Amino acid sequence: MAEEKKKVLTGAGLRGQIAGQTSLCTVGKEGAGLTYRGYDVRDLAKNCKSFEEVAYLLWYGKLPNQAELDAYVERLKGMRDLPQALKEVLERIPADAHPMDVMRTGVSVLGTLEPELSFDQQLDVADRLLASMPAMLLYWYHFSHNGKRIDCMTDEPDLAGHFLALLHGKSPSDLHREVMNVSLTLYAEHEFNASTFTGRVCASTLSDLYSCVTGAIGSLRGPLHGGANEAAMDLIDRFQTPDEAVAELKAMMERKELIMGFGHAIYRESDPRNEVIKGYSEKLADEVGDKVIYPVSCAIEKLMWDEKKLFPNADFFHASAYRFMGIPTPLFTPIFVCSRVTGWAAHVFEQRANNRIIRPSADYIGEEQRPVPPISER
Amino acid sequence: MAEEKKKVLTGAGLRGQIAGQTSLCTVGKEGAGLTYRGYDVRDLAKNCKSFEEVAYLLWYGKLPNQAELDAYVERLKGMRDLPQALKEVLERIPADAHPMDVMRTGVSVLGTLEPELSFDQQLDVADRLLASMPAMLLYWYHFSHNGKRIDCMTDEPDLAGHFLALLHGKSPSDLHREVMNVSLTLYAEHEFNASTFTGRVCASTLSDLYSCVTGAIGSLRGPLHGGANEAAMDLIDRFQTPDEAVAELKAMMERKELIMGFGHAIYRESDPRNEVIKGYSEKLADEVGDKVIYPVSCAIEKLMWDEKKLFPNADFFHASAYRFMGIPTPLFTPIFVCSRVTGWAAHVFEQRANNRIIRPSADYIGEEQRPVPPISER
Repeated sequence: MAEEKKKVLTGAGLRGQIAGQTSLCTVGKEGAGLTYRGYDVRDLAKNCKSFEEVAYLLWYGKLPNQAELDAYVERLKGMRDLPQALKEVLERIPADAHPMDVMRTGVSVLGTLEPELSFDQQLDVADRLLASMPAMLLYWYHFSHNGKRIDCMTDEPDLAGHFLALLHGKSPSDLHREVMNVSLTLYAEHEFNASTFTGRVCASTLSDLYSCVTGAIGSLRGPLHGGANEAAMDLIDRFQTPDEAVAELKAMMERKELIMGFGHAIYRESDPRNEVIKGYSEKLADEVGDKVIYPVSCAIEKLMWDEKKLFPNADFFHASAYRFMGIPTPLFTPIFVCSRVTGWAAHVFEQRANNRIIRPSADYIGEEQRPVPPISER
Repeated sequence: MAEEKKKVLTGAGLRGQIAGQTSLCTVGKEGAGLTYRGYDVRDLAKNCKSFEEVAYLLWYGKLPNQAELDAYVERLKGMRDLPQALKEVLERIPADAHPMDVMRTGVSVLGTLEPELSFDQQLDVADRLLASMPAMLLYWYHFSHNGKRIDCMTDEPDLAGHFLALLHGKSPSDLHREVMNVSLTLYAEHEFNASTFTGRVCASTLSDLYSCVTGAIGSLRGPLHGGANEAAMDLIDRFQTPDEAVAELKAMMERKELIMGFGHAIYRESDPRNEVIKGYSEKLADEVGDKVIYPVSCAIEKLMWDEKKLFPNADFFHASAYRFMGIPTPLFTPIFVCSRVTGWAAHVFEQRANNRIIRPSADYIGEEQRPVPPISER
């Protein structure tokens, strides 16, 4: 019995169990925080002007020089549009569908139209997904909500600007472009989290990249994984003043309700991504003259620390930052997809390069063996 | 270094590591072979007249009595048709698409049209998927290959007959119906294989059932997992006589080529499903007067055992059995989906009932921490 319990506890959630090797990322290692291929995520957020540099780093193994970056951006710009058949599919998805289900479907359909026929094509498919994901989301969004068939091509010099331009129908301000680039950088990669691990399990059967990304989107959709920034926004939106927030949060704590956007499975003292996005949230609050959302967010942050010693994770100040840029709350998690596709695909490449099919065991707790009774005796 | 190597070996593929509990299935346990909720799969194949009994067992926890089975079959019969929007999506998927990509897309789209809004609906969604999957595949198949919009409803008394009737446009013979029921039973459930584990990782984020099944289909698509029956058929099809097969197989062995449909990651001496499907393959060979495919299959089986001590797994004689029933080879793995959706969904229910997010760790083998160089110095 004790033996049985021990096995179960070890197995539950595979926490702390090594499921493979990676050279992509460290999470929460002492002195390192979060690094992509050895670079601190804060350093990348500060010194890479575009998210394309981070995508290139994760997929091609090194930071691009200017000529490489220019060529890469041009390449991606040519891949932003959607095939007509995919647009027609997106037109058949209702306005009240979950935007993550739209992303999952868009990627799956693209896999039927432009299949990955050989692993030699993996970088092409990855680039295509990265470039076309904003259109998948926003073509559906504008058509289902406003009956409008948008032009999926823009001349924006980066994906961050392209996303905002497709959403708002105009080129973003310099600050908004910068925040979006930083946001995509912060969300790009995070080791063996559940969605990435889903992608690696799928990759381990030697399935195609579209299947891996489709599966990963399905996992990121879960409220225990992606979606925390949406939940944080819904919480923040309930309050008009910091005092109101503090009073209600205290009541929520007494009722032992879950408060999203705080703490982390791996980080123990702080989430290195928070200080970056919080700084931008403050800047954007100034820009739009906000006197409610940012002060309420700060009051919640202080209270969570004072009462629970819980720190905001990457998601909490993303909520207000996205709001200040006019992004509708249901699109928050799909932006996470537009970013994390870089980490997912990088892990698929890594799994393929040194593969063994991922097939763990289960602890059987069911019925002993028994004969099938005839239907008349059941 | 030795320590590092040990960690890696333990982690690779999570082989032998307990990733959770299950009461659904044992695989390869001494004296038990393969059991679903304690019932030997051979016993179920022999004594359940329809696959619906097995689906009911896996999802509702017990074998149905006659009244329960009749009600369940009627319920599923009413769920076989597809929404018009899904048909229109399937019409946009080209004929040369991978049929597994069609299944993955069909499930994903249905999730946007008939979402699982609460876990209270999980059995309804599972029943809906089970009942509608044959139509997803075969509506696309007939439309893309023959331009024909088939009626997705039949009055067949079981899913096995429904599948064959949609494929062939007429009610199957008693033998074909029986083989199809047995085949679906044999493929229904197999513990923490890669596709089921994909579904459980997805479920552990508390995502919806459509996402879990979409992800599982993507993993089953991989050639190391599903698809072995298709590969076996392609192999068998190369030979006109047993002697030809033996000669070429020996040459393949010398060239160390992989021969699909033999051996198993878990079973060591035999696959309990093989004896069942082999028996039916022989019956069907008699029925159609086959003098090539079955003898060739048996010659390959004997040679693999004599030379390699490798036994046929569930997939090998499935190839010839499906061929004798007139099923096109590219539809073999999608039939696996129509069956395994029962196991996948049962595991999702189980994961949800006692959940912890599945989030293993990785062994970092990448670059040491380093500063981001300015783009001019890269």
